[in-house]
Amino acid sequence: MKIVVDCHGSDLGAKVAVEGSVKAINENEDLTVVLCGVEEEIKHILSNLDYNEKQVEICPATQIIYNTESPTEAVRKKKDSSLVRAYERLKEDKDVVGLVSCGSTGAVLTGAILKIGRIKNISRPALCPILPTANGGKVLLIDSGANIDCKPINLAHFAIMATCYAKAYLNIENPRVALLNIGVEDKKGNQFSHECFELLKSAPINFVGNMEARDFLSGKYDIVVADGFDGNILLKSVEGTASMVLGEIKKGIQNSFMAKIGALFMKRTFKNLKNTFNTSNYGGAAFLGVKKLIVKGHGASDALAFEKSILQVKTLANFNLCKSIETQVALLGDLNGGD
Amino acid sequence: MKIVVDCHGSDLGAKVAVEGSVKAINENEDLTVVLCGVEEEIKHILSNLDYNEKQVEICPATQIIYNTESPTEAVRKKKDSSLVRAYERLKEDKDVVGLVSCGSTGAVLTGAILKIGRIKNISRPALCPILPTANGGKVLLIDSGANIDCKPINLAHFAIMATCYAKAYLNIENPRVALLNIGVEDKKGNQFSHECFELLKSAPINFVGNMEARDFLSGKYDIVVADGFDGNILLKSVEGTASMVLGEIKKGIQNSFMAKIGALFMKRTFKNLKNTFNTSNYGGAAFLGVKKLIVKGHGASDALAFEKSILQVKTLANFNLCKSIETQVALLGDLNGGD
Repeated sequence: MKIVVDCHGSDLGAKVAVEGSVKAINENEDLTVVLCGVEEEIKHILSNLDYNEKQVEICPATQIIYNTESPTEAVRKKKDSSLVRAYERLKEDKDVVGLVSCGSTGAVLTGAILKIGRIKNISRPALCPILPTANGGKVLLIDSGANIDCKPINLAHFAIMATCYAKAYLNIENPRVALLNIGVEDKKGNQFSHECFELLKSAPINFVGNMEARDFLSGKYDIVVADGFDGNILLKSVEGTASMVLGEIKKGIQNSFMAKIGALFMKRTFKNLKNTFNTSNYGGAAFLGVKKLIVKGHGASDALAFEKSILQVKTLANFNLCKSIETQVALLGDLNGGD
Repeated sequence: MKIVVDCHGSDLGAKVAVEGSVKAINENEDLTVVLCGVEEEIKHILSNLDYNEKQVEICPATQIIYNTESPTEAVRKKKDSSLVRAYERLKEDKDVVGLVSCGSTGAVLTGAILKIGRIKNISRPALCPILPTANGGKVLLIDSGANIDCKPINLAHFAIMATCYAKAYLNIENPRVALLNIGVEDKKGNQFSHECFELLKSAPINFVGNMEARDFLSGKYDIVVADGFDGNILLKSVEGTASMVLGEIKKGIQNSFMAKIGALFMKRTFKNLKNTFNTSNYGGAAFLGVKKLIVKGHGASDALAFEKSILQVKTLANFNLCKSIETQVALLGDLNGGD
């Protein structure tokens, strides 16, 4: 099995991408990574690492797509960028099952749709990150920002795709799906909420009803479905609030000698907390609904995050996630007389 | 000056409402509270307190509206409830400047619109809670859930109302207003975001552009404007995440002897943190856009929260907030050729 890695565009540069890739192959002898990027730089980083040379291919590229660029324009014009070369390889080489990138989210999504294409019946692929919950579990959010104007049928597709994904990656047999809303009662929310609610009820998933944003991390749900606008607000607000609370604690420790001593005794508690919120441990966000596996890691990904994202693609490929999504979505099409 | 207090419907019952009211008058001899609720109960609570009898009136009621009831039905049918009696008194007595309730949010909003009515030109009054920011400051969110389907003009009104409110209550001369969006660039978001953005630019406020949910508590903004659906998601997600993070720390302390010792040394840090997130210190959420002052406190309000909410109404009345809102909104009407 081959997985292509876009080695540029993330905050920490090619070094962590290559190191993470090497860690992944060193644990999996049936895996080959295709490293896309500036050849000389990749070779230089590789020269300091131990690995089986048969498990590494280099796919040369001379350009890098940055976060600040217009995604569509960058994907169209930067034909020799690491991301575009990675997508071409993913498209053309049937042995390559998926792609990992920690670069510009917009460019990764645009590239996936333009170069790889959507799964049959799915008009809106969606981004699906993993977040920690209070009971030590995990929750999936879909869509976290790929589609800002959605129809109810799109949310039904999101729910089905994430259900397949939760089975494949989180080993949850019958994932509990909730609709993001402003209250838990069936009739809560606006017209869009009501239509989504009805459609989700009839979809081939385990729909458990509406969820308030307050309960997102409660562990009561495995999958939370939302349009990309609201999903993005939910995701960013969790990130902002967690970082604000932890920042206030840090400030308290810095400003007090007593608190500094206390923090030493609480080292393990804080370390666990940091681990809980360390997205490197979970792999990246899957972009579901395109014909091959795409995992978009955090811009600040370290080598561990690259490694986890690559192994994530491997797990999903073994499960045959894209096929499973296609089959399940077709089932909804039959139930609802097509899209 | 008189302020009417709905003594029932909150989690801790009439005791905290009456005690908070008495604290408020004991610090302000020009203030009278009109306590609405079950007469015998209120008299019994008062009998244990020291206060000037001239500063307390009782407005008897025999019914209570609960959170579980349909707001519109409850306000219409429970004519002898503490909330409906409070609204009647607020409407009929010109000396009563405002109302404080910690009961059912839906019933408080419905009552305000049915019994008191909207300020001229404002079709959508909105709920405006106060949240803490990282730099020890405060941020207003409007609308946090009163209006789930909004037009851009409603958001312009929200921005103007909250600007008047921030001047009156937070003493901010030129409050920075941001639009909740999924990115900071001018063209981010959906069609609705774009229309709101253009209208806010032309409104008589200090509009500083789009804000990502991640920056809500950063202290970079004084007012965040959103439709009630997205505002509600933002608010609830902040509450849920803060409570999840603090809960994980608590769990860590309970599960480890070392952490227990550490927590003793960090007592002040945790106390400050708890204080930062203790909404009792800020007063309640103002319901802006109706003809009299309405403050809705948290359902779990204690006596301190009631006291702060009453004093909040007093401050807003001294500023003549409703008049100020009417004047400023009329200004927008002129700019945009009316609503």
